[in-house]
Amino acid sequence: MTMHQHLLTQNGFVRQDDLTYPFEERGLQFGDGIYEVIRVYEGTYYLINEHVERLYRSAEAIKLTVPYEKKKMYHYLNELLQVNDVKGDAKVYLQITRGSAARDHVFPEKPEPNLYAYVKDLPRPKSFLESGVSTITQPDVRWDWCYIKSLNLLPNVLAKQTAREHDCFEAILHKEGEVTECSSSNAYLVKDGKVYTHPAKKNILHGCVRMRVEQFCRQLNIDFIEEPFQVEDIHEADEIFLSSSTAEVMPIVSVDGKSIAGGTPGVITRKLQQAYEEDAGLTAGSSIFSSNTHA
Amino acid sequence: MTMHQHLLTQNGFVRQDDLTYPFEERGLQFGDGIYEVIRVYEGTYYLINEHVERLYRSAEAIKLTVPYEKKKMYHYLNELLQVNDVKGDAKVYLQITRGSAARDHVFPEKPEPNLYAYVKDLPRPKSFLESGVSTITQPDVRWDWCYIKSLNLLPNVLAKQTAREHDCFEAILHKEGEVTECSSSNAYLVKDGKVYTHPAKKNILHGCVRMRVEQFCRQLNIDFIEEPFQVEDIHEADEIFLSSSTAEVMPIVSVDGKSIAGGTPGVITRKLQQAYEEDAGLTAGSSIFSSNTHA
Repeated sequence: MTMHQHLLTQNGFVRQDDLTYPFEERGLQFGDGIYEVIRVYEGTYYLINEHVERLYRSAEAIKLTVPYEKKKMYHYLNELLQVNDVKGDAKVYLQITRGSAARDHVFPEKPEPNLYAYVKDLPRPKSFLESGVSTITQPDVRWDWCYIKSLNLLPNVLAKQTAREHDCFEAILHKEGEVTECSSSNAYLVKDGKVYTHPAKKNILHGCVRMRVEQFCRQLNIDFIEEPFQVEDIHEADEIFLSSSTAEVMPIVSVDGKSIAGGTPGVITRKLQQAYEEDAGLTAGSSIFSSNTHA
Repeated sequence: MTMHQHLLTQNGFVRQDDLTYPFEERGLQFGDGIYEVIRVYEGTYYLINEHVERLYRSAEAIKLTVPYEKKKMYHYLNELLQVNDVKGDAKVYLQITRGSAARDHVFPEKPEPNLYAYVKDLPRPKSFLESGVSTITQPDVRWDWCYIKSLNLLPNVLAKQTAREHDCFEAILHKEGEVTECSSSNAYLVKDGKVYTHPAKKNILHGCVRMRVEQFCRQLNIDFIEEPFQVEDIHEADEIFLSSSTAEVMPIVSVDGKSIAGGTPGVITRKLQQAYEEDAGLTAGSSIFSSNTHA
């Protein structure tokens, strides 16, 4: 994952090597900030409106002023791809913190937020999308306001690390048995042709791809039911999948070492993956459906 | 609060101006780190063993390797005061993050933790200690593992900021009415001569001063009862107070705009403040009891 040379900051574009942060920065001392990860396919943003809207919602929720107005944000984000001559698949990471100030929980009197955004090349995770991934379940110990996409990600880090130590792609999080989402993606269960997922309350991230999955279901006449499912429901499920901006619509074929529905991606997951590819404007050459292995 | 010139890092001492952080640092992107704030009175640490022990416990809880062994940590912390010629009242802030790495929730293969510690002058908050402080109650929306002194402090920041916007010193946090602690201190209620506080479970910080308050109570024959109290109990209380390394044993004289027990610090709080001063070796000149206003 190569990082492109030019970074966006609150003061315009800088070169990678020219950007450092003060040690007394509220991002570094309190995680006092927010972020977004935006997908880029063939040099074009996917779901950029949804990401930018959520960024401003997160900022408002923590009373943080975004250094630019929305119109300028779109302008700069597009410029970020241009100055780096991005033509392929990539992701943009953008974060905003409440800036540098003498350490105090209370906000600085006149906060000067720090922003940076960079682009990294990122191919689609095709083999995972084709074969599906393994997961484990983990208790959800995160704070109550996960709808804010904040930099307080330590519980997510610890859950994902535990997953990786078990050779798993993701950790499915649950509060006393009730599945909320995954460590960095939303979680779904399919039963009798219906898709179940945790409602978009304050304790889960309102994923941009999650919103799209809801739309795809509507288009495909699949019931999309915002009701939490239980860990104990998982092994009776017809299909399980997850979604995020980098994982797209990703089949889950194993949970806690046990296969789900025979260990192969399910029919509805496949339909949603196909809808995703169409929605994202992915061309035949990039599709996971271009070989003969899938219908 | 002047910061002293010389900072401790994982590579030894550096001057303030020479320390910057990479933007792709796990502290800055995930809050993936831990910290301590240690009190210094007249150039000498107070409760340093307790803080160092907790630092290593926090590190272990998030599977982070502290760059030095304990013995060396003590050595460097003492050197930090010496090289800066600290003779007065101060605080040391120390944090350790999992280091710089390409952004990924999963730990880097070979993490190289970053550490820094600085000293700032900090006089005792005497007028607050004498008169007591105002507080407000706020819902506790933090994660389940607040016993880890992590850099994920956004909920604490938001609660403290709300307190300050109401001209209050602190926010008393509660989970559905049950008081856990404050945004950066532990909380106590006194009723019928007994001290009540939330048990040292995983969802509160196990304060170093809290441990001392327990010991002071034992010495003073005051029952120290580790049972949570309710927000609704507060206005029936005889006394309320909080404790932390910088706030010491601090009387609370107002909660949510209503006076507690007449709006003056209570007898047991005063006894514990006196025990604190003795334990910390605070001399007559520095004592809040040296004037005639207090018995």
